Amino acid sequence: MPLDLGVLISGSGTNLGAILAAVADGRLDARVRLVVSNRADAGGLEKARAANVPVRVISHRDYPSREAFDGAVVTALREAGVEWVVLAGFMRVVTPVLLGAFQDRVINIHPALLPAFPGVDAQAQAVEYGVRVSGCTVHFVDPGVDTGPIIAQSAVEVDPEDDRESLARRLLAKEHELLVRVLGWVAEGRVEIEPPREGARRRVRVKRAPG
Amino acid sequence: MPLDLGVLISGSGTNLGAILAAVADGRLDARVRLVVSNRADAGGLEKARAANVPVRVISHRDYPSREAFDGAVVTALREAGVEWVVLAGFMRVVTPVLLGAFQDRVINIHPALLPAFPGVDAQAQAVEYGVRVSGCTVHFVDPGVDTGPIIAQSAVEVDPEDDRESLARRLLAKEHELLVRVLGWVAEGRVEIEPPREGARRRVRVKRAPG
Repeated sequence: MPLDLGVLISGSGTNLGAILAAVADGRLDARVRLVVSNRADAGGLEKARAANVPVRVISHRDYPSREAFDGAVVTALREAGVEWVVLAGFMRVVTPVLLGAFQDRVINIHPALLPAFPGVDAQAQAVEYGVRVSGCTVHFVDPGVDTGPIIAQSAVEVDPEDDRESLARRLLAKEHELLVRVLGWVAEGRVEIEPPREGARRRVRVKRAPG
Repeated sequence: MPLDLGVLISGSGTNLGAILAAVADGRLDARVRLVVSNRADAGGLEKARAANVPVRVISHRDYPSREAFDGAVVTALREAGVEWVVLAGFMRVVTPVLLGAFQDRVINIHPALLPAFPGVDAQAQAVEYGVRVSGCTVHFVDPGVDTGPIIAQSAVEVDPEDDRESLARRLLAKEHELLVRVLGWVAEGRVEIEPPREGARRRVRVKRAPG
């Protein structure tokens, strides 16, 4: 059975584009059942429509709280038959309403090697700090900001000449590759969170490919 | 002129060993003028003696304050003709007494991709967190804990099966390589800290090799 995905976006949706391309050419055994944007002008909506994927614009401004907004998103995702949720440049902090409805099935892609540079504009944070290696992270979402269990990371070198834009551009290529690879593992049922250990973080195990 | 180094250690001194080997076989144009250990039983002292490098044991327990201890270290380094100071597994926080005496000429090697996992046992911190990429950092030392301007970093993949020891072992090989490479840049006069910018961190520029 292909993986039934919902993708949440706020902007141009380049990572959504990478998922759609991988689905279209058979590299990823998944179906994008719904794309939700909290902004009506998100460029990613066009990418979804072009791929005949249903879209919903659900504006956070129409809801009195984060929880109420998440409730509407959950309803839309469930109605569309979504099993796993990908935050792909989704600029809202999600609440336990969404996380509880899709327990351990919400993942995010972040343009830094977490735990370094969580939060907004990680690329600019990395350039300002002066690191020589940055990268991207795909992780399970928990109620914190970019604090959930890490599934995979990919490194990129940072040149002292890099600015935010040049680093962001190089990272994007890595993000697309990493996100599609991780979704492939998920589709194969290979990604699991370890049982909690006393006083320790939950960590992720990726089972070996069968055969 | 070869670079006149002082190396501060607290333990087995494997990074010191890498420096001594690179000096001995001509890969690094430097002289280790003095090795200082704050512990009399540091294994690195034997490595220094075997290379005919002068050693000094200066125990922090013999001094009433960090500053007084650093004062004694500075005196020893100056008497030995040291120009640049390398902290190589030196387990003491240094004070402005040392940093002022060797302004912008004190570097440290840290077994993580700073700013992730500063402080003690970075390898264990990384494994506990569950990262998939870690690495090592060579940076200028400032009064904070592993917060100074970064000169170079090198990434290593972390396997979910890694424990602290296996990661530490793999990192060590990268540390040796990175530290010797950076000291080579320093010896060639290619490493400089950018002028401070309003409200921003100081960052490092590595000038291109001549010719």
